[in-house]
Amino acid sequence: MKVGLFGFGRTGHDVAEEIINDPSCELVWVVRKSHEKNHQYASDFLGHPESHQGEFFCMEEAMDPDFFKKHPVDVIIDFSSPQGLYEYARAADEGIHIVSAISHYEKKEIDFLKQLSTKTVVLHSANITLGINFLLVASQILQQIVPNADIEVIEEHFREKRGKSGSALKIAQKLGLDPVEHVNSIRVGGIVGKHEVVFGLPNQTIRITHDAISRKAFGAGALFAARALATEKTGFFTMEELMRKAFFTNIAVNSLLQ
Amino acid sequence: MKVGLFGFGRTGHDVAEEIINDPSCELVWVVRKSHEKNHQYASDFLGHPESHQGEFFCMEEAMDPDFFKKHPVDVIIDFSSPQGLYEYARAADEGIHIVSAISHYEKKEIDFLKQLSTKTVVLHSANITLGINFLLVASQILQQIVPNADIEVIEEHFREKRGKSGSALKIAQKLGLDPVEHVNSIRVGGIVGKHEVVFGLPNQTIRITHDAISRKAFGAGALFAARALATEKTGFFTMEELMRKAFFTNIAVNSLLQ
Amino acid sequence: MKVGLFGFGRTGHDVAEEIINDPSCELVWVVRKSHEKNHQYASDFLGHPESHQGEFFCMEEAMDPDFFKKHPVDVIIDFSSPQGLYEYARAADEGIHIVSAISHYEKKEIDFLKQLSTKTVVLHSANITLGINFLLVASQILQQIVPNADIEVIEEHFREKRGKSGSALKIAQKLGLDPVEHVNSIRVGGIVGKHEVVFGLPNQTIRITHDAISRKAFGAGALFAARALATEKTGFFTMEELMRKAFFTNIAVNSLLQ
Amino acid sequence: MKVGLFGFGRTGHDVAEEIINDPSCELVWVVRKSHEKNHQYASDFLGHPESHQGEFFCMEEAMDPDFFKKHPVDVIIDFSSPQGLYEYARAADEGIHIVSAISHYEKKEIDFLKQLSTKTVVLHSANITLGINFLLVASQILQQIVPNADIEVIEEHFREKRGKSGSALKIAQKLGLDPVEHVNSIRVGGIVGKHEVVFGLPNQTIRITHDAISRKAFGAGALFAARALATEKTGFFTMEELMRKAFFTNIAVNSLLQ
Repeated sequence: MKVGLFGFGRTGHDVAEEIINDPSCELVWVVRKSHEKNHQYASDFLGHPESHQGEFFCMEEAMDPDFFKKHPVDVIIDFSSPQGLYEYARAADEGIHIVSAISHYEKKEIDFLKQLSTKTVVLHSANITLGINFLLVASQILQQIVPNADIEVIEEHFREKRGKSGSALKIAQKLGLDPVEHVNSIRVGGIVGKHEVVFGLPNQTIRITHDAISRKAFGAGALFAARALATEKTGFFTMEELMRKAFFTNIAVNSLLQ
Repeated sequence: MKVGLFGFGRTGHDVAEEIINDPSCELVWVVRKSHEKNHQYASDFLGHPESHQGEFFCMEEAMDPDFFKKHPVDVIIDFSSPQGLYEYARAADEGIHIVSAISHYEKKEIDFLKQLSTKTVVLHSANITLGINFLLVASQILQQIVPNADIEVIEEHFREKRGKSGSALKIAQKLGLDPVEHVNSIRVGGIVGKHEVVFGLPNQTIRITHDAISRKAFGAGALFAARALATEKTGFFTMEELMRKAFFTNIAVNSLLQ
Repeated sequence: MKVGLFGFGRTGHDVAEEIINDPSCELVWVVRKSHEKNHQYASDFLGHPESHQGEFFCMEEAMDPDFFKKHPVDVIIDFSSPQGLYEYARAADEGIHIVSAISHYEKKEIDFLKQLSTKTVVLHSANITLGINFLLVASQILQQIVPNADIEVIEEHFREKRGKSGSALKIAQKLGLDPVEHVNSIRVGGIVGKHEVVFGLPNQTIRITHDAISRKAFGAGALFAARALATEKTGFFTMEELMRKAFFTNIAVNSLLQ
Repeated sequence: MKVGLFGFGRTGHDVAEEIINDPSCELVWVVRKSHEKNHQYASDFLGHPESHQGEFFCMEEAMDPDFFKKHPVDVIIDFSSPQGLYEYARAADEGIHIVSAISHYEKKEIDFLKQLSTKTVVLHSANITLGINFLLVASQILQQIVPNADIEVIEEHFREKRGKSGSALKIAQKLGLDPVEHVNSIRVGGIVGKHEVVFGLPNQTIRITHDAISRKAFGAGALFAARALATEKTGFFTMEELMRKAFFTNIAVNSLLQ
């Protein structure tokens, strides 16, 4: 699978490493805001001096109408910024799949992605790790089983992270919780990313917790999504949907056999 | 719902309190090994001096062929010992439902319960809390979604608890884990009961955790089960099955509607 | 040790039980706001029908100038309300020790307690458990060792608890943290009381966590304090000071011997 | 501070990165078992293509009698293997400080290190992070304050880690706990390193927990130790001693001022 990456910040850096480390993938290029080190290789800055993967292109170059023809990939993975999608919109015409992991889109960007999904496969998830999406689906089920439980979301991240985490907000929204009241954000040191959903009942407490060990977990999630949708032609997907399908299929099978 | 309770140890004590506190239930009697305080009321020893619920009977009295006719109940809840079931077997002939929360049955006892279930409703669960059964079902689903995850079970209980917890063993068995290797038992102080299933992936960890706040959680679970099966006539059930059905039903509905 | 208790709410209830269960203590009386069940025994409502401890008196009776002479105790333990102390102020004249565990005093009440401490021993702690005070002292030491760590306090309690916990506020104050920003309050189900201080460094996180299993922990702490100060005549103390002394003494001994 | 590193495995790799990232340090060389990539730079494999730090030398070269004269450093940091110390013993004659973070020394190696400490500064700690040593000291103090508490150690690491963690064994030894009974080892996925000491009392539980976010925490600890001892001439030290001194000093100051 040939991959192009938008964004090479803190997370993009680790996602690039996960892609390079995956023997069934090739990181063809990385589009960055910066001109610095243009046309050098991401792999050089990730400790793989002989790998020559992830050639750096700046945004202006990516805007070239022929960029995606000259530098073809199977899928674009986007960890850049909410505006990134306007730069790779043309890739949809080439049938290049799009996996976007941007946290804070406005409605306008979501609508634009849905337009693109009439031409190619588009998946968007504010948090693309398998674990967060397990949290998301399992929490909704548990809420239906114990509707009288009190629910709080606790999320912990490195000190510099601004605002409440997109994943926590998504969980709150799906559970019908006011995020101002019920999303508790801890910002300390270098915590990669922890999300916990707490269900409180009078005599017991249930917690579902996800700890990201490294931001490579985002890369693993993005590659999982890219592979799961490789044979699709068009359509708009979310990781939550993929996870919900996994839940449903397995449960159904279990129930019939037992 | 009229309830008879077998067992008045540490857990039976709190289960009795939960039953007495539930306005839609009446604790008719409690069968104990001890002769001490016979025919006094459990409610006196639970801080409800005017309630007169849970008259103490000793085992010999319960063996009286007419005991269940003279002291009728809708359901027997058993938190006594693996041998308890031989004492209330006759209740099955009266159509009295049986909810057994005994942890360490031999195969012989399970077989005997299944025989009784041809005559009445029998539910058995080594751990009858809603939370543990959520753990049990959600863990099996997660294992199917990420089959390459390493899994460990950690259980914490009060120092006097002997052996590995029945719930932890059940979880290990359902997940195909060798309990000697993969069930980690912590025994300290007065911890009521904590079970955690840890799923380790290379870049992320997922934990599903159940904390019992008080042993009344067992009572709440037993009453939930008794109510859920109140309209059944015969059959052998487990809490896990009830939970699995809850998962399946909700997921199915969700999937169809979205 | 003869004990008088002010307050018989959710916590006072469990504190009374801890005192009754302690063979070296006698719960002589309990002063309550309510007239209901006056002159009955607390022990009857705690499942000790033959114990006859903790005779209920209403506040008006406690205001009788001779109350503390007619019903003498060694120590008053106060889990009532911020106003309680005005009712037992006269006890100080009898040399009765005072252990107050009220969370939310105004400065006026603290000043009044300090006045009483010229006549008898007064100890006040917003959270009187051993564990919270270990948290308090150990956190201050850790902050001095790693002054660049980011610190957050997370506290979890039962849904009905209003406001931020007094213990969490105390910890924040001692660590110089703005409580609005850095005390995170989770309110769900029946959680008895959990406090966690999180220290975040770039490559590691340290947590010190206290879980109250039952509100009897408050009783244990109050009795510990009462005993530790039994031979003192006057003075104002806090549990934190007792804990700090324990730290200091042990460390000093260790350091000299090794 | 000029640093030489022994060992470039999973941890050595991250320690090298921490040293390179520290602007007040220079990683002069790295001694490795492997001949592969000899005389290339560690910095090339850590994503710093222009840094030229950490020239690789193989063990045979390090055995050259003049190695430490030709390639002088202020301190050797050892994350290699228990045998590593025999290779850099000659460095002690040059007054080069030694910081060893090897987990599983035999008594023979400890004795050998102590011999070297008559000629230079030697620090050894099985776990050299600040956090683990805080755990170690704070746990001992808490044990003295609540000697009747039950204590368990839980440690979690990546699946490939063999044996119980050296840090957990050290904690157990210092607390007088049988490690076979009381050290619980969880091996799953990619967990960097978590250690928790659980203190159980009848009505409360206290936990002190250390989570390593990245193995760079070991590098940070080693550099902290190297700096703390930079002005010493000879002597054998442990991180625990440095931590204990930090506790003692701060407490003493606090106690006198308050």
